[in-house]
Amino acid sequence: MTVSGVLARDLGTLVGAEFVRMPEIADLEDGTRWTGLRGTADAVVTPADAREVADVVRWCYDHDLPITVRGGGTGLSGGAVPEGGVVIAMERLAGIRALEPEWWRCEVEAGVTTATLHRRASEAGLRFPPDPGAAESSQIGGNLATNAGGPHAFGHGQTRAWVLGVEVVLAPGELVRIGGPLRKDVAGYDLTSLLVGSEGTLGVITAAWLRLVPPPGAEQIVMGVFPSAQAAQDGVAGALVSGAVPAALELLDGGALQDSAATLPVPGASAAFGELDDPGQAHLLIAHIEGDLVEATAARGDALAAAWQDAGATWTAAPESAASTAIGQWRANVSGAVAARRGGKLSEDVAVPTDRLAELLDGSEAIARRRGLEHAAWGHAGDGNIHCTFLLDPSSPAQRDAVHHAAQELFELAHRLGGTVSGEHGIGRLKTGQLAKQWDPGAVAAHEAIKRALDPKGLFAPGRKTA
Amino acid sequence: MTVSGVLARDLGTLVGAEFVRMPEIADLEDGTRWTGLRGTADAVVTPADAREVADVVRWCYDHDLPITVRGGGTGLSGGAVPEGGVVIAMERLAGIRALEPEWWRCEVEAGVTTATLHRRASEAGLRFPPDPGAAESSQIGGNLATNAGGPHAFGHGQTRAWVLGVEVVLAPGELVRIGGPLRKDVAGYDLTSLLVGSEGTLGVITAAWLRLVPPPGAEQIVMGVFPSAQAAQDGVAGALVSGAVPAALELLDGGALQDSAATLPVPGASAAFGELDDPGQAHLLIAHIEGDLVEATAARGDALAAAWQDAGATWTAAPESAASTAIGQWRANVSGAVAARRGGKLSEDVAVPTDRLAELLDGSEAIARRRGLEHAAWGHAGDGNIHCTFLLDPSSPAQRDAVHHAAQELFELAHRLGGTVSGEHGIGRLKTGQLAKQWDPGAVAAHEAIKRALDPKGLFAPGRKTA
Repeated sequence: MTVSGVLARDLGTLVGAEFVRMPEIADLEDGTRWTGLRGTADAVVTPADAREVADVVRWCYDHDLPITVRGGGTGLSGGAVPEGGVVIAMERLAGIRALEPEWWRCEVEAGVTTATLHRRASEAGLRFPPDPGAAESSQIGGNLATNAGGPHAFGHGQTRAWVLGVEVVLAPGELVRIGGPLRKDVAGYDLTSLLVGSEGTLGVITAAWLRLVPPPGAEQIVMGVFPSAQAAQDGVAGALVSGAVPAALELLDGGALQDSAATLPVPGASAAFGELDDPGQAHLLIAHIEGDLVEATAARGDALAAAWQDAGATWTAAPESAASTAIGQWRANVSGAVAARRGGKLSEDVAVPTDRLAELLDGSEAIARRRGLEHAAWGHAGDGNIHCTFLLDPSSPAQRDAVHHAAQELFELAHRLGGTVSGEHGIGRLKTGQLAKQWDPGAVAAHEAIKRALDPKGLFAPGRKTA
Repeated sequence: MTVSGVLARDLGTLVGAEFVRMPEIADLEDGTRWTGLRGTADAVVTPADAREVADVVRWCYDHDLPITVRGGGTGLSGGAVPEGGVVIAMERLAGIRALEPEWWRCEVEAGVTTATLHRRASEAGLRFPPDPGAAESSQIGGNLATNAGGPHAFGHGQTRAWVLGVEVVLAPGELVRIGGPLRKDVAGYDLTSLLVGSEGTLGVITAAWLRLVPPPGAEQIVMGVFPSAQAAQDGVAGALVSGAVPAALELLDGGALQDSAATLPVPGASAAFGELDDPGQAHLLIAHIEGDLVEATAARGDALAAAWQDAGATWTAAPESAASTAIGQWRANVSGAVAARRGGKLSEDVAVPTDRLAELLDGSEAIARRRGLEHAAWGHAGDGNIHCTFLLDPSSPAQRDAVHHAAQELFELAHRLGGTVSGEHGIGRLKTGQLAKQWDPGAVAAHEAIKRALDPKGLFAPGRKTA
């Protein structure tokens, strides 16, 4: 297929005719496709570099055409699903412009995948700590757009904490650099932090300077099984006061364990879940402890295991470090294992103050029960950020409707607990209207005033991240 | 003295007549007083709480009166020096509203001093890592307004990295909460990061939720003397690749050592400076290494010392941990020791990419030499953030003039090296006009659009942080 008329001609002039095409289905969906969310677009362009991105943005801004940026298409809130206009796909901006291990930094283009960055940093003896899912497909530009999290955000911060500066196309099509290979700068407002997490609604990030650090010398995983959500919350507090200072602190509830416990590569773990009075109420906590030396790190693991026994754990284990990779892979597969049970799921990413964690877990399960849905929950317990999940058969309109309503109730629960509807996925198109329920009116007004100030025509990702 | 007329009556109604007064000299100056910078103000109010701050802001906004917020008055860029209108002094907002060690967090009011926060966190077994100077006087509100740094910003980030949320009065006088006791939230634009570092130009921060962490189990200081700025820069790279992962990486040049080497409480250090061919070219690096256990941390110190010997250090030492406090106090006194030499100084806070550190150090000294000024430099080498300092007799108009011109040349040098005029002090009133030389026009336009969007009347700290 070809794009006809003025659009094809003009965009082709900017990026080359072979890099302008009609959208295919894959361009119009993202990780929310099971919800039925599918967009529309007039054209997809794949610019070669930042200059071409700026040219395309300027052309769109001149012609009042909406702009949707597309990275790996792994988003879970519909941010990359276009609503007419032009899709700018970043796959050709895949260069690592600089990698300077002696200064702990690199400059990468927006289309570099998370896995590529991790691998290149590792080969240079360093580490980029943020570890959101879908590393092989997701792109750094998308990580920045959503301020992506992941398990190690607990100890190392979300993506924003690792961004030194961005190259970005601002309205009406100006390519600018903010920050750079510079570790400190307080001269201007922190536009970098503002753009990170703005989900493509304020401009198009084309590249970023990122901080790197040496990896830890040793890692120790500790696991604990708790008989209830409240006991698991006590386990989180126990981990925080234990002195072990975990870098990640993850949780799986009984629903998530139902689909994944049997494959957990740790001897005795699976049996430990079944020995509880109510296995459905089992909650597994997993701590990743990082340190200098194997023995010292193991000693911190022992301290944490002891704290968990005091907090009510019915079973604890500290697997050998050789098992770390297998456990990490197992953890990454939890989402898929849960989805497989009924064929579809809606995984939210609400976050609450950590002292409200048990109320969130129990409340989410109660919502599912009332709606006649199966439920699972897992995620980043140390950050109070849980993927509360409602399972469904995607072919059932009734279940889709029930899941939709369950999600709305979950958002209300998060608000009631002083939390947020999104800890790491973003608002996208699925959670519009929620910010106004969460923030004071004056803060919402500031959010909206910034949008108007930086995108006066409202062409960057219209309809997304709206209050 | 009393404030007369409508101002006194109306403000007195809002905060109580005894909390409205005419400004005294101390209200009109800050840490820049030696430059002769002194402001004017119509009144100083000391509100009791956030609600009263909001009332005062609304009254000022209604009456088109400029608003200057005043914390500890320790700023080094004139940010707290008013230019007419109302000064809101935050000293009565000194409450620690919450301190929850089991959740690693606290909520403090803006007028709490840095030292108080450090002490209270420490008593709870935790730590607030940012460590800007003047801890006994400076207030958390000022730390947030400037995104304050300090030595441990290298390993732990600047103040912004530790802020979970803010309570802030936005125009035209609305008290709003953004964030809270919540570790992750990507629902709205990151207004917290935008307000942190905005130097009171976008609103008045009245309180903040802050993250805390356990302190390290052990600390090891390592020192190295290098015979030139280039050798010191090589020492910084050597530290980064050594695997020692320092939490702070500080530098003093020959000029700073001239005033402070004799009092350094480490045996042999002082002699080591003198043994160089050119003692004026001595550069001291100081690394703070944090770890779990004394022996493991000391081993990382050994690795760092070896790396420094390879990088050209003429002397290294790893003082016993008992000396840490004394060395920290000595380091904190460097600024005062340098100032004492001639009675006055201008200490800038330029930052450059760390691979340009030697050019900055040598270039700053050359500027001083050409201008007939004495020079010293010290600061946060790992962050490329150096307090390049020109000494003067404050009673000499010629020297004041020379220092002013030297600072302008230093700013140009920082720009040429890809750096910033301010790594941690802010723009305030002394460095206005510099951002436009540093950022692309489109980025400056975004900075200014945000100011207009959030402060349409331009009443928050007028004339400060302007591009």
